[in-house]
Amino acid sequence: MAEYRGLAGSPAWEELRRLAKAPFDLSRPGALSRERLLALRAEMAGFSLLYGTERVDGPVLAALQRLADESGAVERFLAMKRGAVINRIEGYESENRMVLHTAVRDLFRPDPCHPQATAQAQAELDKLARFLDGVASGQLVNHRGQTFTDMVLIGIGGSDLGPRALYLALQRFSLPERRVHFIANVDPDDAAQVLGGLDLSRTLVNVVSKSGSTLETLTNEELARAAFVRAGLDPGRHFLAVTGKGGPMDNPARYLASFYMFDYIGGRYSVTSMVGAVILGFALGQEAVIELLRGANGVDQAAEEPDIRGNIPLLLALLGIWNHNALGCETLAILPYSQALIRFTAHLQQCDMESNGKGIDRQGQTLSEKSGPIVWGEPGTNGQHAFYQLIHQGTTVVPVEFIGFQESQFGKDLEVQGTSSQDKLLANLLAQSLALATGQEHPNPNRRFPGNRPNCVLIGERLTPLAMGALLAIYEAKIALQGFIWNINSFDQEGVQLGKVLATRLLSHLAQHRAQPGYDGGGDEAGWAMLMAAGLV
Amino acid sequence: MAEYRGLAGSPAWEELRRLAKAPFDLSRPGALSRERLLALRAEMAGFSLLYGTERVDGPVLAALQRLADESGAVERFLAMKRGAVINRIEGYESENRMVLHTAVRDLFRPDPCHPQATAQAQAELDKLARFLDGVASGQLVNHRGQTFTDMVLIGIGGSDLGPRALYLALQRFSLPERRVHFIANVDPDDAAQVLGGLDLSRTLVNVVSKSGSTLETLTNEELARAAFVRAGLDPGRHFLAVTGKGGPMDNPARYLASFYMFDYIGGRYSVTSMVGAVILGFALGQEAVIELLRGANGVDQAAEEPDIRGNIPLLLALLGIWNHNALGCETLAILPYSQALIRFTAHLQQCDMESNGKGIDRQGQTLSEKSGPIVWGEPGTNGQHAFYQLIHQGTTVVPVEFIGFQESQFGKDLEVQGTSSQDKLLANLLAQSLALATGQEHPNPNRRFPGNRPNCVLIGERLTPLAMGALLAIYEAKIALQGFIWNINSFDQEGVQLGKVLATRLLSHLAQHRAQPGYDGGGDEAGWAMLMAAGLV
Repeated sequence: MAEYRGLAGSPAWEELRRLAKAPFDLSRPGALSRERLLALRAEMAGFSLLYGTERVDGPVLAALQRLADESGAVERFLAMKRGAVINRIEGYESENRMVLHTAVRDLFRPDPCHPQATAQAQAELDKLARFLDGVASGQLVNHRGQTFTDMVLIGIGGSDLGPRALYLALQRFSLPERRVHFIANVDPDDAAQVLGGLDLSRTLVNVVSKSGSTLETLTNEELARAAFVRAGLDPGRHFLAVTGKGGPMDNPARYLASFYMFDYIGGRYSVTSMVGAVILGFALGQEAVIELLRGANGVDQAAEEPDIRGNIPLLLALLGIWNHNALGCETLAILPYSQALIRFTAHLQQCDMESNGKGIDRQGQTLSEKSGPIVWGEPGTNGQHAFYQLIHQGTTVVPVEFIGFQESQFGKDLEVQGTSSQDKLLANLLAQSLALATGQEHPNPNRRFPGNRPNCVLIGERLTPLAMGALLAIYEAKIALQGFIWNINSFDQEGVQLGKVLATRLLSHLAQHRAQPGYDGGGDEAGWAMLMAAGLV
Repeated sequence: MAEYRGLAGSPAWEELRRLAKAPFDLSRPGALSRERLLALRAEMAGFSLLYGTERVDGPVLAALQRLADESGAVERFLAMKRGAVINRIEGYESENRMVLHTAVRDLFRPDPCHPQATAQAQAELDKLARFLDGVASGQLVNHRGQTFTDMVLIGIGGSDLGPRALYLALQRFSLPERRVHFIANVDPDDAAQVLGGLDLSRTLVNVVSKSGSTLETLTNEELARAAFVRAGLDPGRHFLAVTGKGGPMDNPARYLASFYMFDYIGGRYSVTSMVGAVILGFALGQEAVIELLRGANGVDQAAEEPDIRGNIPLLLALLGIWNHNALGCETLAILPYSQALIRFTAHLQQCDMESNGKGIDRQGQTLSEKSGPIVWGEPGTNGQHAFYQLIHQGTTVVPVEFIGFQESQFGKDLEVQGTSSQDKLLANLLAQSLALATGQEHPNPNRRFPGNRPNCVLIGERLTPLAMGALLAIYEAKIALQGFIWNINSFDQEGVQLGKVLATRLLSHLAQHRAQPGYDGGGDEAGWAMLMAAGLV
């Protein structure tokens, strides 16, 4: 049998294309039977995936299983965890790296998949525990002997979105008098806004950049250091670094403490490394970090299951391919019914679109089938009062993944009209799933709903650090598994380079324009004209 | 000539479809000439729109002008401002209302388009001025005689997204010691998080619901009132209402003050009414509110220009139709290079998708061409480190509208490597526009960029209240004008009803399940099975 080379040429994919001509009709009366809704449910790591409201039936699920088998997606996932060099394009210059974000949480059994990477992660965790003990015990204090109450994370992209999403998700579990803030954008208003509201003398600043050369982060670090100096404070007593060992930021003279990240973990997969662990440990304590890792590791192990009905990430990956490639939907809406997950979709937007927004396969060939979708969304019920109109009645079909929890985090609730707010939240979630699937006939055309809008519901018990780790790992695994099935490299990001090069060129024009009267762009017609059109030169 | 009935049947649209087979090639060397980039630029109300990086040329622009003329979009816009009953579907039961959000800012000339609505708006503004004077002068204080420093807005959808987006955009201009907070989600964790961080004794709560019956808002109001009572405070001294006159919330006994909204302003267009004015007035002062309205009114007037090259909202509307309907792109990314606009895209997502995510035309006929796109996005440069990979190299083309400002809001900046942060922000914005358009050839297939990804740049001087008003009105007008060209009703939202009905039914099941042992859903097979599958019964 020929080596698997992606959807094109796959017999299972041919079958799926054929089946896509007449997908299961969710709007037919009785289509959503009790039998169907209870049968099309998968369980893993405390989560249930309800997928009876997807446009799938027995033949489609069988073909999706064959696609999973043909692609060897689960075997590739296992190879990834064991340290295969899969971040590469065969025959071309590329990053040529292992992909080992799973190793930093493979701490809970005697035989981790990649012992060396896990040992490195354990050493950083031990260093973090000592640091956090120092902060808690009053050994690490400011120049007046006061404890630290606030931490500012300066980072961008993977060094911002994941940590921010998880902190917002879990801040309900924070230690007393511990708060975390974030500066990401090179927009100077971002840093000014955050720093202006803090007592800098009791603030630690955690600068996160694997390369140690991220323009936005270095600029914001300088802005922050200047603010500390203006306040009469020594940045060396307040600034921490999370960076690559031996890189330009690995400089103990400038930082109170340094934590390391390694080249086998990409930014968008780094939140369970020190990139997220330092702020989460500061806010929640080391134990919560360990719970987060335990939750993620549970999924990393369970995702080795080859039966799609028992493997939520694999099933999500295949349902996504069915909706995107076979049914032709460009986007995926991820809609969490949990205010704590307010930035989780933004994190997944990065993780998914930067991983799978690719145009070539692992052999450097231009793809003939679509790779990753556009991922977007906001928490429900807010979104119901915003963009759901289009999802229900618009001319474009939007597949939806709903996320919810049976219990609230706070437990502070109030019965109004006989039901609690949490009841209302869940009832709305499930009602939206049903409404999208079944639609509604009506004599008034404006009250007709076409239905057959595919969606699924991922539901857990309560959003704890353990559950957050599992949820994160479900999506990380889903994205990697989809990449294996599309036969793309989900772990590089060459597409961000061209904009960087052109931005540097435009900055150089701006600097030269100020220094040399009459400078006219030195032959870069389009770049110079763009600056003129924008009124900058 | 037959009455215009949307794209289907329009000669200009037929021409555009023909032209779409060979759109302008942005990636051809020299395509982005200085002449082109300077010529394809429109000016309005302090903003420039640079659209040389769209896939348009002379014939396309001429056909777009003809489409604008054929559709009578500008005449319809004028009729809207003058009070035509355009929120309706002909021949069917519908809301049958005027659409007069423009009237609340038509205050700056002696002959407003709809004098009665503008007079009502002026009366509310006068009431607000008196209220704000009372707060500032110490006439309105808490039971200990202290001034109010914080305001919580409780609202959802249009009563949340617009006010939140504009407050975050303009909070740099806040009065000393004035802060605003927001509770929207029925998720009880949302209210608990916000209320837990406040000194309630110095907090005003502004409850916003036009109908006075929004489930989430009433529930959160009860949660908040309970928190005030627990703190020993009288809610009657702290709670304000913004609601429809004569509606269920128009009850002076329960509120310190009430401000009115009217049925001719839809929620998603209400931010310049009292819905946004009360919190913005509290935070920034009445003068800033008037500046915001002045900026919006300037665009409302300028958008009467029939020449698309001199009318930014009309041009954005037509470029959007070109990209969405003619070039076949499902989505539109709106990417502001301004951290202050962090929630502006979320507001536009609602405003656009709830307005134009429709399946029937104004005569109740099913559309044969697509209506509104999926709108999404996050601020740059953050997004560059997140989802831009897909925009540059993915298999799906994403049209982009960039937004930027020549100057920062704060003016606190730092030169690093010879350029300021604001320089870096703008250089990145313009570089992304160029990179998406031109692409790049390369021997390594992973470093190839296909280019021809259509985009435009909307650039203003500085994000002040005046500029914010103009920017908001540009998008409000764009959305309305697109709706006129698609021949849809952009002002109702029947698509949100089915989910509400089903949620009420599921809530009733939950309540009966708890009250009656053996209750099994009373024949609602799908609903009951969904609750079972989710583990709730």
